[in-house]
This record gives sequence, C-alpha cells and structure tokens, in this order.
Amino acid sequence: MLDLRSDNTAPIAPEVMDALARANEGHDTAYGADGWSQRLKDELARVFETDDLDLVMAITGTGANALALSIICPAWGAVVCHPLAHVVQDECNAPLMFTGGASWITVGEPHGRLGPDDVASALDGYHFGSMHSAQPKVLLVAQASERGLVWSLDEMRAFGTVARRFDMHFMLDGARFANALARTGASPADLSWRAGVDALVFGMTKNGGMAAELILLFGKARSHAAPFLRKRSGQVQSKGRYLAAQAMGALAGGRWLERAAHANAMATRLAEGLVKRGARLLYPVEANLVFAQLPPALQDRLAEKALFYPGYENGGTRLVASWSTSADDIDRLLASVG
Amino acid sequence: MLDLRSDNTAPIAPEVMDALARANEGHDTAYGADGWSQRLKDELARVFETDDLDLVMAITGTGANALALSIICPAWGAVVCHPLAHVVQDECNAPLMFTGGASWITVGEPHGRLGPDDVASALDGYHFGSMHSAQPKVLLVAQASERGLVWSLDEMRAFGTVARRFDMHFMLDGARFANALARTGASPADLSWRAGVDALVFGMTKNGGMAAELILLFGKARSHAAPFLRKRSGQVQSKGRYLAAQAMGALAGGRWLERAAHANAMATRLAEGLVKRGARLLYPVEANLVFAQLPPALQDRLAEKALFYPGYENGGTRLVASWSTSADDIDRLLASVG
Amino acid sequence: MLDLRSDNTAPIAPEVMDALARANEGHDTAYGADGWSQRLKDELARVFETDDLDLVMAITGTGANALALSIICPAWGAVVCHPLAHVVQDECNAPLMFTGGASWITVGEPHGRLGPDDVASALDGYHFGSMHSAQPKVLLVAQASERGLVWSLDEMRAFGTVARRFDMHFMLDGARFANALARTGASPADLSWRAGVDALVFGMTKNGGMAAELILLFGKARSHAAPFLRKRSGQVQSKGRYLAAQAMGALAGGRWLERAAHANAMATRLAEGLVKRGARLLYPVEANLVFAQLPPALQDRLAEKALFYPGYENGGTRLVASWSTSADDIDRLLASVG
Amino acid sequence: MLDLRSDNTAPIAPEVMDALARANEGHDTAYGADGWSQRLKDELARVFETDDLDLVMAITGTGANALALSIICPAWGAVVCHPLAHVVQDECNAPLMFTGGASWITVGEPHGRLGPDDVASALDGYHFGSMHSAQPKVLLVAQASERGLVWSLDEMRAFGTVARRFDMHFMLDGARFANALARTGASPADLSWRAGVDALVFGMTKNGGMAAELILLFGKARSHAAPFLRKRSGQVQSKGRYLAAQAMGALAGGRWLERAAHANAMATRLAEGLVKRGARLLYPVEANLVFAQLPPALQDRLAEKALFYPGYENGGTRLVASWSTSADDIDRLLASVG
Repeated sequence: MLDLRSDNTAPIAPEVMDALARANEGHDTAYGADGWSQRLKDELARVFETDDLDLVMAITGTGANALALSIICPAWGAVVCHPLAHVVQDECNAPLMFTGGASWITVGEPHGRLGPDDVASALDGYHFGSMHSAQPKVLLVAQASERGLVWSLDEMRAFGTVARRFDMHFMLDGARFANALARTGASPADLSWRAGVDALVFGMTKNGGMAAELILLFGKARSHAAPFLRKRSGQVQSKGRYLAAQAMGALAGGRWLERAAHANAMATRLAEGLVKRGARLLYPVEANLVFAQLPPALQDRLAEKALFYPGYENGGTRLVASWSTSADDIDRLLASVG
Repeated sequence: MLDLRSDNTAPIAPEVMDALARANEGHDTAYGADGWSQRLKDELARVFETDDLDLVMAITGTGANALALSIICPAWGAVVCHPLAHVVQDECNAPLMFTGGASWITVGEPHGRLGPDDVASALDGYHFGSMHSAQPKVLLVAQASERGLVWSLDEMRAFGTVARRFDMHFMLDGARFANALARTGASPADLSWRAGVDALVFGMTKNGGMAAELILLFGKARSHAAPFLRKRSGQVQSKGRYLAAQAMGALAGGRWLERAAHANAMATRLAEGLVKRGARLLYPVEANLVFAQLPPALQDRLAEKALFYPGYENGGTRLVASWSTSADDIDRLLASVG
Repeated sequence: MLDLRSDNTAPIAPEVMDALARANEGHDTAYGADGWSQRLKDELARVFETDDLDLVMAITGTGANALALSIICPAWGAVVCHPLAHVVQDECNAPLMFTGGASWITVGEPHGRLGPDDVASALDGYHFGSMHSAQPKVLLVAQASERGLVWSLDEMRAFGTVARRFDMHFMLDGARFANALARTGASPADLSWRAGVDALVFGMTKNGGMAAELILLFGKARSHAAPFLRKRSGQVQSKGRYLAAQAMGALAGGRWLERAAHANAMATRLAEGLVKRGARLLYPVEANLVFAQLPPALQDRLAEKALFYPGYENGGTRLVASWSTSADDIDRLLASVG
Repeated sequence: MLDLRSDNTAPIAPEVMDALARANEGHDTAYGADGWSQRLKDELARVFETDDLDLVMAITGTGANALALSIICPAWGAVVCHPLAHVVQDECNAPLMFTGGASWITVGEPHGRLGPDDVASALDGYHFGSMHSAQPKVLLVAQASERGLVWSLDEMRAFGTVARRFDMHFMLDGARFANALARTGASPADLSWRAGVDALVFGMTKNGGMAAELILLFGKARSHAAPFLRKRSGQVQSKGRYLAAQAMGALAGGRWLERAAHANAMATRLAEGLVKRGARLLYPVEANLVFAQLPPALQDRLAEKALFYPGYENGGTRLVASWSTSADDIDRLLASVG
C-alpha cells in the first residue's frame, strides 16, 4: 500500500539519520549549548542572510506554534488567522494554554483563500484600545496552508504591510515552509523577514526530519524571555544536539529544498493523473497536498492500493506526497487504477 | 576530558540507536497509532505486571512531569514535594503552566532526606476543605532524588500510605527510576503501583535514550482526559514511532536495568576513589550521582581531567556517571589525580 | 440628557440600597458564611423550585461567566456559542484565562438568531474523541441575547436536547435572565433546569443591583471544586453579606421581575415611538434593548436629548432601557424629537 | 458577643455608606469612566504626591494582589515573599492563575520577621539568567504583615534597595497599608514610591469599605496592559462609580487614617489588657492584630464573651480590632474576664 495519509507517516530522510549518527559521538554539553546547536545558528544566519535573528528550537509542531505565540502575543491579545488554521483546528487549545489565554479572530471563508485584504476588512472598525476586546497582536499565516495553498512574494509583502498597519506581529506557520519556498522560488529571506515576517516556525519534521521545529524570531520579535518561555513549555530537549543535528542534516547542501521540491512535484504528478481519471481538484496543488473529489469507483480502486484520508469538504479526500514518495510510486498507483 | 557533568551529556546507547534505525523502515501511522507504540504498551504491561495502566508518552522530562501533574492535579490543588525537587527548582514554572496554576507545599529540609513522616507532619493541621487554601492533591517523590538518594521499598510503601491517608495521588518523578530499581533490586511493579504509586514518569533519556519519557498512570489515575491534555501540551510527537522505538530499544532484554546498574556502580567506584583521596561525601551514593566536598588540590587536579559542576551546597561538587562511563574511565581519572 | 447607553449606567434600585443598609448592622461572618448568604440560598431554592442546586456568588458579569465556565469546561474543551456572545466579544479573554485555555466554537451568522438546529448542524461530523480537536463540552446561550433576543420555552428545551445529545453542559449567560423571564412569562425553573440548563449566570447588576451575579449549578453541574475555583478567581467578596444582600433586596416580593418587565416595556415603548418616526428595527425588541437604524435627522435630534451608542451593524444604534427609565422619560424624549 | 475574628466581619463605615448613597443619583458612565473614578484619580495623586501613577481598581483583596502581580511579573517569573504571605497561604493559587504560572521564592522563617537582609541572602547565588530557574521579578512585602508587623521607613527603603539590586519590582500587599501608615506616621508617598515601591495594593475593604481595593502603579510599573489584564480578570465593576465612591468616602478628610489609627489603638489596648491577665504575645502589636498565647482559663472566659480564632502557632489565638471596635467594647470585655 502506498501511504499518502500524511507527511508524518513518512520515515526520516537518510541525511537526517546520518546526522543523528554523527552527533552520537562522545559527550557534549546539554540543553542546547552543544556544538551542533551553535553551528545550526550560524547556518541559519547564512540561509536567512541575517544575524538579526534568534533561534528557539522546539520539538513538535504544536509546541513550536504555541511557544512562538507565547513569545509574541500577550494573554490579552488575539491572533488573526484563517478559520482552518492548524493552531485553531488541530492543536487542542495548545496556543491558548501557552499564551495564557490569547484568543482567535478568524478571517476569511473556511474553504476560501485568505487574502491580505480580508485581514484589513476584518480589522477596520475593530475596537482597538477598548479593554473589553482582546487586542489583535499577531497576524498568523500558514505558508503553505493546511489546504496546500502557497502565498506569492507579493501576497506575503501585502500581509506584512497589513500587519504593520495594525501594529501586529506577522508570524508564519511554516510546517511546510520548504514547500512554499520550492513553489515560489523565493529565497528564505525574501519569503520571511524581508516581507515583514517577525516570527517563523520553520518545520523540519514533515520534510524528512524526526521531530525538530525551528522558531526564528527576527528583529523586533527577538526576546530575552524566549529561553524561559521555551523551558517552561517543556520544549527544551536535554540532549539538544540531536535536535540541532536533524536540522543540520537536512540543511546540508540544500538537500531540504530538493526534498520539498520533490514532494511538491509528486503531488502535482498525482493530481494530474487523478484529474485525467475524472477527479476534480478542490484547491490548486501548490505544495505537497492534493484535495480532490474522486469519482466513487476511482476512490474505491485507489483505496485498494493506497492509504489516504477521506472526509474533507464536499466529500473530498486528501492525499499527501512526501520526500519519500517516488515517481514510480505515483505512476504505479495511477496505472493500477486504470 | 572525562565528562561527568550530567547523564544528559552522554550519547545515546547503541541499542536505542539501533531501534531508531529499525523504526525507520517505510511508512507508519502518525501520532502514536503506529506499531511500535502498540508494542510498547504491551511491553510495559509485561514489565509492570498489570494491564490496569495507561501509557502517555512525552518527549522531555520537564514536559513529562508537568503533563503528568496536569492529569492528576487540579488548578486549585497543591503538590507536596521536597524543596529541591526538579519540578520546583529546574523546570522554570512548567508544572504551574501545565496545571493552570497548582502550587507547591514543600516539605523537609532542603539538604535533608524527605521521609514519609515529614509529609504527615506537614499536613496534619492543614486547612483541608477551606477554599482559602490550595488543596494537597499529589505527593510527588523523586526516585531517585536530585541528590541521588533512593527510597527503599518500605519507605515507598509508607509514602503510599500517607498519600492515601490524605487522599492524594502518589506520583514518582522517575527520571532515574531505573537507577532506583537497580539499587533496591525491587521489581518495577513493587516499587511503583504495588507501593501505592498512581503516576510514574519513567525516564528513558538519562538512561541512554535520546528524548523519551513514559508517563504511566495506574488504577485511579487513569484518565480519559490524558490524550487531550497531552496534545495541548505539545508533547505528541507526530512521527510517534521514533518515541516508542527508543523505549523498545532500551527495554529489550532488560538492557535498561543493566545500563542503570552500571551507571550506579561507576558512581560508587568514583566516590570510593575520591573518598580515599580525601573527599567528603555530602550524601550517600545510592544512584549515579556523587556529591562531594573535594579538597581544593584534588578538585583542581580533577578539573584538568574531567568536566563536572561545582557550586553545590557546602562548596560541594556534583559528578555524574552514566551508561557510557566505563570502569577504565574512572580508574584512569582517579589514577591521574594521584 | 436621558441616558440610554446601558443598563450599567443606571443607578441601584432603592430596594437594593435598602438591603445594603439593613445588612450593615453589626458584625457578621466573612466569606459567605453570613446570615444573608444562607437566606439567599433558601430563597433561590424557593424561586427555582429545587434543592438540587449549588449557589456560587460572583461579583462581576465577566467574572461570573468565566468562573462558571471554569467549573464546567475542562482546559481541553470548547464552548459552543454565538459569534456575538458576550464571552467572545466583550470579556477580553477572561473565559480563556479562567478555564486554562478552553476555546470557542462559534455557531450561527453574526447578526442572525442562533437556533438549536444550527448547533446540531455545526457539531455533526465534529471530531469527537480526536485528541487534535478541543472537545465541545458546553453549549452557552445568552438569554436574553446581546441583541435583545429571547428564546422561547420550546427553543430552550430544544437547546437542552441538543446539549444532551452531544454530551455537553448547557449554560445560560443570564445577565438579562430576568428580562427573558418577564418576556416569556415562564417560571425560573421552567426556563432553566427543567429545560436542561445545568449552569445559569443569574444577573443582578443590570437589573438594579450594584455588583452581584449568581451562578446556579443544577444537578450534574454541581461541583465540590466550585468554592476553590471561585476563591482562586478573586470572586469571593470578603464581606460577603453585601453581595447576598443585593440579591435578597432585589428578589424580595418579586420586585426583580417587575423591574425587568418594566425595562422591557420601556424598550418596546421607545421602539414603537422610533418606528413611527421612521426608524427601522434591526432586531425584534424582546427584552430591554433596541437596535435600530435611525434616519439621520432623527438620530441627530435624539443625540441632543439622549445618550446612546451608535456604531452597530448596518449603521445601527443601540438604546437600552433600564429599571430606572420611566414612561415619562420615553414619552418626553419622543415628543422632543417630533 | 464582641466580634474579634477579622476586620472583614466588621460593617461598612458610615462615611463609605454615605458616599455610596451620594453616588446613587442618576445615571453615570459605566466601566470606570464615571465622575467618581475620575475624582478618585485626582485624590490619589494628591494623597500620594505624584502624578506618575496609574490607578487600577479591583474589587477583592485576592483579585487585587493577583491582578497586580499579573501586571508586573511574567509567567516565567518568581515572586519573593514571606512563607506566610497572604498570596501564598490564603488565595487558593489565584496569583498563579492570574500570572499564568509565576511561582514563589519564600524567604525567612515562617514565624519570624522578614528583613531586607534575608532577601539579599536568599538571592545571592540564585541562578539568574538560567532558563531552568524561574526568574525573581517581584519582591512582595505585606505592610502591615499577616502577623500584624509593620516595617519602618528605614526597613522599607532597604527593601527598595535590595529589590533594585536584583532588578525586581517592589510590591506592597497593603490590605492594611493604612494601619502601617498610622503606626509609622510616615506619609503615603514616603512609605511607598519614595521608598522604591512600584506597585501598591491599597486596601479599602478591611478599613471600613465594602469591597474596594486600589492598585497603584508607580513609575516603571505603569503599564498600558493593565486595563486589559484587569478586564480579563473579572475585576472591572460595570457600575464603576460604586467602587470609586467607597474610596472617596473613606479618603475624605483623612477619615481613613483616623479609622486605622483607632483600630491599631484598640488592638494595643486589648493586648495590654490581656498581657496583664497572663497572656503572652507571639508578636509585637504594631497594627490591628493581636496574636497571643492565652492561659486556658482566660481563653475560655474570653470565648464566652467574644468571637476570635484559635489555632495559630504555638497554640496561639488571633484577635482583630477594626474601625468599629470601641474602647468601651475592649474595656468591657477585659473587665468581664477578670
């Protein structure tokens, strides 16, 4: 069975496993003061073309999103985001716990595409300054989104502008940031801090890692409180070198971007094959996720050969390609369903 | 330099690395519904001789302690523990965050040995039932303790009795539970639920793991809320198999107990050598930790050959042996300091 | 100027002031163990025709709503309510703070009327039992609502049914419960626990009180944790008699219901007068609140003689009648604007 | 029976009741934007001789302490205070809830007198800057203390110095601040901000009020977040004028200081009488609280004529004088017990 359920059902990429093995030599300082962690900071400064950043390592995606929010959003704040955002739908209130009770202001139609103008419309007329209302402090955009949508450089800059206009931090849930980079061709710096992003959760796990998420804080989002907030959140790995090593293994030689580009290409290949067989795409395939309405017969035949999740909007199914999905896998699957 | 700073500066044991490699074959279900996690539950039922348990996996020690407390202690509760407990001193308020604000009642002299009678004395006359006072709901004992002390089976049963008497859960911070088992020779079941323990944080990380902590809930501490509390805490590893695999690798063939017994023996060997050279032990060496006042000349010579932390009470130093500390390491170090 | 801004800009009714004066004789036990508080419990048992209730007194409306939720909703739970609910819009994240991070599932169109069927539709297909999703634990309905709508006995029973079907508590934000009773003519018991309500915030403040809100917990919502949760929330008035006395003053001889009926009647009188002068009502006037689009000239003339808040949906204004608004006040105002 | 249980069992002073009655004329703006609240700000600037202050009104003592801490202490911070502090012993974890999980560092012997040097000793060697340890951010002193002790101007300045030295805010729990002023004869400014106090909970309730506590934030403790933190804490009285009016009634003409001086004098009169009859004082009587070991026969006779609480340390009893305790009351009581 070909597993298309999630990028989390995929194994760890060999370069990450190799890095773990290399990190496992002798003793090293605990709690992130090891050599791997130091080198990772340097590497990220290079990749993101700036020294004006703080690295806060986290272990899980939910932990990373919630921890990042706890750094940039006060307990009396609100996070402006899409109603289908992972933080809203899939993290069982973690961001509310970590922030001490910050709330959501959801913007946009559940199954639509969030645009910068939607944000501006939603906030014009908001009760800024009134103690009765939680104050919007963060604009949170998923890049790529939960439905596999990718925002262009222009859209990102427009989000940055609207965030500044309303004096909010601009945060990216980048569990699939690599996929967004691969899609847009933009540089990491252009697609983040140069577009106004203050805080980026740069996901390693879905892109071939084991359990490693990097929170990058740029410029005004940098905070002396971050290490304490991280520790109290249970996101400090005592043997920290194995966290940093995963990222170092992935980043080395740009392998991470190739992995993401591959996953994107596999999703496109799958989507095209399904469309030819009668499927209707619910969303354009811009990252490694395919959402499609499948003719019942096609869905049944697919289900004999592959694992994937039904139950999405309009009777849709979700199929996810990962770094470990091969072109042969896709082609064989498509061939087998006629 | 011989690294005696912490069991967290040690590498991962080979059997754990092997298990990670074996887990890395093909796809598997995410979020703990994988095969490794299922097998781990069975293995733990065997090791602890009971099916009346829930397994809640966590990633970090701080996360595990805080999450366990959030399951068994209400926000208006208090946790009775020693003033030097890890949860009090070393987790930057994490347990307060996870429980929504539960507090401590610390019992015993900071540098003394916590006994069951101390607990009873402290709670006799407490304002049970008064809304003004946080209500004692958990007795938390570290086994082994932060100072390397191990409680005997009789002491454990007495703690269990006092916990029941005051209607509290009895929880063990077992970051070094294996060391306590190795020391006492008691079975896991005898030293936990049969002695009245409701909740055990069974640490894998310090004993050769990478980042894996097992929360075991017995009997009345089992809770349908645990999965939700775990998820909102950011302690659910999406690729859960790599969490379970660490534990499976460690547990296989009883290797974990041998590892802990070895670390204990190395600490004893080191302590004996230091005492011969004029050191005074601050605590009996019952696990893998040595706390000693060293004559200045000895301390200086040691510091040329080994890493360890000074700055403990009475000018003491802490030296920690781990699974990876060899008898040769110790003997060479001792020989080198004369 | 006639003040129609809020029922909170009105003074305290004479019977409440009298009760405060009567309570101010000599010493009495603190923290709610006084005679007034005891008598209030008895009086509420009589008014609500049941002994199966716990009374938890709170001081502010926000405190009462948030405290009640903290009693019946776990931190990993979600509260199902209307997007314009006071708890969502007007309490600056208090319910999230008090519950430790419970979230909202908002149901219904912002400016529409929430119906029991809307709730059922929203929850059918929800990920009950999945740790990724906050679990719906409370259905919260405002009776009367923030837009002055009142739910009939049949609607209330249907809400009760849908709450039970999804295993949720059914809570009323009854800041204006008296107005709803006056409108429907139903008994307090029928409009609360007999319709399936588990938790009722029974507001005294808007209906002639100074600062007193009564949380009534019925049947399965009764909780031994409530006194502790109340104390840690800062809602325990040390000189508790003055809290209970307000309620006793209001309840005596059914004066509270007359006060609410009067306020409702004044709102209707005002609404009718405004409609005759060209206003268009945004909502039916079922309690003491009038929402209306006013012709600009009318709005200008009104603003010379009365205080009220513009800025509601569709250019609407809100005008609120209270116990202290007289028929003469209304008639004079209407006459003065032509 | 003479009630000596608490200053909270006393009634409201006539000048406060009068102010409530005067405030009850007509309508006024809600939520603290009323005329009484504005005048109170001006009055406090006069009483404290500075405009560099923010007033945050709260309703209960627990709410005020917890809210003040939430303004000046981050969730990863620690509050340095005496082990018998009201916030630690008597507020059922409220400060932990309001701050999102800040913890205590208790200093000094439980039944001793906290001195500035104790604070310095406890913090020398603390792990400042280490993410493992909650960071001391607030020095909290009760003035007067829970045991009726009052700190002199010199001691206050020394506390201020030690707070600055460790970069902590200096907060006073001033539930009985008036009693401390009356005792020391110092001015409000001298005993607060001029001595380095950043945040003062200035209690009105115990000194003849109904339910009113004033949080004063000076200089660097002033915060734009305070109104939002207050609202989310449920401490905003919607009919805010009745909160401010209590304080205005008490402050008018310096009546509040006379009330406190009277209560202090009554406690001293009582203590002297008891000592003559064989009692041994557990603490010097510096405010309105008497802690004494009573000969059993004396205690029995007292219990026939007066209400008070036994059960304090060393078999001690607590007797509390209030503004409403008269010299005749005391003399009659003493005479009656022989």
